[in-house]
Amino acid sequence: MPLMPDLTLLPWHEVRDPAEVDAALCWRPPEGWLASLPNLRLVHSLGAGVDHILADKDYPAAVPLVRLVDPYMTQAMTEYVTFQVLRLHLGTPAYDRQQRAGRWEPHVPPRAAHRRVGILGLGELGAAAAAALVALGFDVAGWSRTAKALPGVACFAGGEALGEFLARTEILVCLLPLTAATDGILSAEAFARMPRGAGIINVGRGRHLVEADLLSALEAGQLSEAVLDVFPTEPLPAGHPFWTHDRIVVTPHVAALTNPETASLIVAENLRRLAAGGSWPDRVDLASGY
Amino acid sequence: MPLMPDLTLLPWHEVRDPAEVDAALCWRPPEGWLASLPNLRLVHSLGAGVDHILADKDYPAAVPLVRLVDPYMTQAMTEYVTFQVLRLHLGTPAYDRQQRAGRWEPHVPPRAAHRRVGILGLGELGAAAAAALVALGFDVAGWSRTAKALPGVACFAGGEALGEFLARTEILVCLLPLTAATDGILSAEAFARMPRGAGIINVGRGRHLVEADLLSALEAGQLSEAVLDVFPTEPLPAGHPFWTHDRIVVTPHVAALTNPETASLIVAENLRRLAAGGSWPDRVDLASGY
Ligand SMILES: NC(=O)c1ccc[n+]([C@@H]2O[C@H](COP(=O)([O-])OP(=O)(O)OC[C@H]3O[C@@H](n4cnc5c(N)ncnc54)[C@H](OP(=O)(O)O)[C@@H]3O)[C@@H](O)[C@H]2O)c1
Ligand SMILES: NC(=O)c1ccc[n+]([C@@H]2O[C@H](COP(=O)([O-])OP(=O)(O)OC[C@H]3O[C@@H](n4cnc5c(N)ncnc54)[C@H](OP(=O)(O)O)[C@@H]3O)[C@@H](O)[C@H]2O)c1
Repeated sequence: MPLMPDLTLLPWHEVRDPAEVDAALCWRPPEGWLASLPNLRLVHSLGAGVDHILADKDYPAAVPLVRLVDPYMTQAMTEYVTFQVLRLHLGTPAYDRQQRAGRWEPHVPPRAAHRRVGILGLGELGAAAAAALVALGFDVAGWSRTAKALPGVACFAGGEALGEFLARTEILVCLLPLTAATDGILSAEAFARMPRGAGIINVGRGRHLVEADLLSALEAGQLSEAVLDVFPTEPLPAGHPFWTHDRIVVTPHVAALTNPETASLIVAENLRRLAAGGSWPDRVDLASGY
Repeated sequence: MPLMPDLTLLPWHEVRDPAEVDAALCWRPPEGWLASLPNLRLVHSLGAGVDHILADKDYPAAVPLVRLVDPYMTQAMTEYVTFQVLRLHLGTPAYDRQQRAGRWEPHVPPRAAHRRVGILGLGELGAAAAAALVALGFDVAGWSRTAKALPGVACFAGGEALGEFLARTEILVCLLPLTAATDGILSAEAFARMPRGAGIINVGRGRHLVEADLLSALEAGQLSEAVLDVFPTEPLPAGHPFWTHDRIVVTPHVAALTNPETASLIVAENLRRLAAGGSWPDRVDLASGY
């Protein structure tokens, strides 16, 4: 049974009369297409991020932009982040390399209570991941733009606090949105502030990471391992050095995939809010870009 | 500062007068050695298991055997099991293989709530791992000898319930002690009862697993992946097929290593209990073998 029987839903390239479109559900709309729809009253991202939509220079600034916030995706991200933090914490990449070399060599990690994890971004996804890591016993800190208070999490806010946050972070998780302020934040400068041998996990966006700086930091031993789920070009191109780097784990943008069954209910609710006059808890602030 | 300044502590091969030994701290004592100590009043395992001590046919049955129960090791095991369950749950071995092949291929796991994890053994370690997995949202069951009630865990007990427990278990964790009753429990018969494509994680003892049955079950696709931390012979011998099997993860018995700093406090307390007349919460029942 359709959730909204009265709705007319068209793939974008089947729209014949642009004036008929009230709302656009999209991930990466063709440049300028949204601006060509004169009666557009809502743009709904089909993912949690909106950077790919706002990358359209002609984005019609008067039209509300709503993003997908789905507890199902939050749970998926929590599972992924918990897993990858434990992977670096327990030294698993080293055990995987040892197995390939047929080497039996125990090494003793500290317990979670003595492992300092830092999360860049304490929004829907970052705050949930932080809570799960606290429950497992990790020493967790987080960084956000505005000040936060989260149980068991050392909270840092704003650009001035970033250095102090990085200095105490042995495993760094990036769960920021991609904006002008966060583009390239995972850089040589950031890595240099972290303790030697730290690990990073990027589940934000590919452009948060300066790729050449990661390769140099791994080469120099300043970083020990990296787990990357997102890349500036996806799929990650064949022949890219990350594919074969033995200190880099690549996953194909799967940390928190949009789940049609739960997402459709949320999108339907947001479309109903349009009819009801328009007010959305997950409306994006175009000024800050997230 | 020594914890017990009045204690005389000798390596076993430096004992000159066997009659002087009150207590033996050991992991794998030489066959018959414990029986040669006429005034022995306590044997203390330096690990959580005691199978290696009871493997000594001449074990002096009148002497209390105490095992190491250390919250530090329990936390370590919880981290390890949580990690390996997430590894199989999220399909990570497949992503690792894809990376080696340069393949970008997302696949969508169910969420933890729809993933049925089963833990063989609900003792100190099994119960703690179960609680952490419940907290992460997994659908958790456990199996023990005597009936249990653990929050959020479907509890099965006794031989008759094993089939039903296995039938619902997609990811199986073995945290049993090695006894006559559990030797070879991870067998073709057990695998055949599990859903096709299930995964197993063995952190009990190597002899819980029938190695040839695992290889056949992986070959046939009845099992999809195995994570093994323990082996009948450790280190795992060079040339053993597990080293290079692309569906088997080998770790070098590191799930919960004995931690000298915390273990020494516990051993000291148990030695003091000897002087105080002898009663130990973590005394092993020699009849059941754990
Ligand atoms: N890999 C995947 O599968 C996947 C899936 C979903 C989402 N994602 C990525 O995850 C991102 C986060 O999602 P979310 O739902 O958690 O977003 P969110 O709720 O908007 O949270 C964003 C967080 O980042 C902080 N932040 C933003 N700009 C900042 C700045 N300049 N300095 C410091 N902190 C800043 C925000 O601070 P305030 O709280 O102070 O505003 C907030 O805590 C998405 O934008 C997307 O890129 C990836
Ligand atoms: N890989 C590593 O690094 C590592 C480290 C430490 C320990 N271990 C292994 O983990 C094992 C478990 O340790 P633990 O401290 O959790 O032991 P424990 O507290 O004695 O718990 C053992 C559990 O197994 C159950 N059990 C025993 N025999 C059974 C049978 N025949 N049928 C059904 N259930 C049975 C017990 O049932 P009841 O509760 O009904 O008695 C109990 O729940 C150790 O013996 C050791 O082999 C491995």
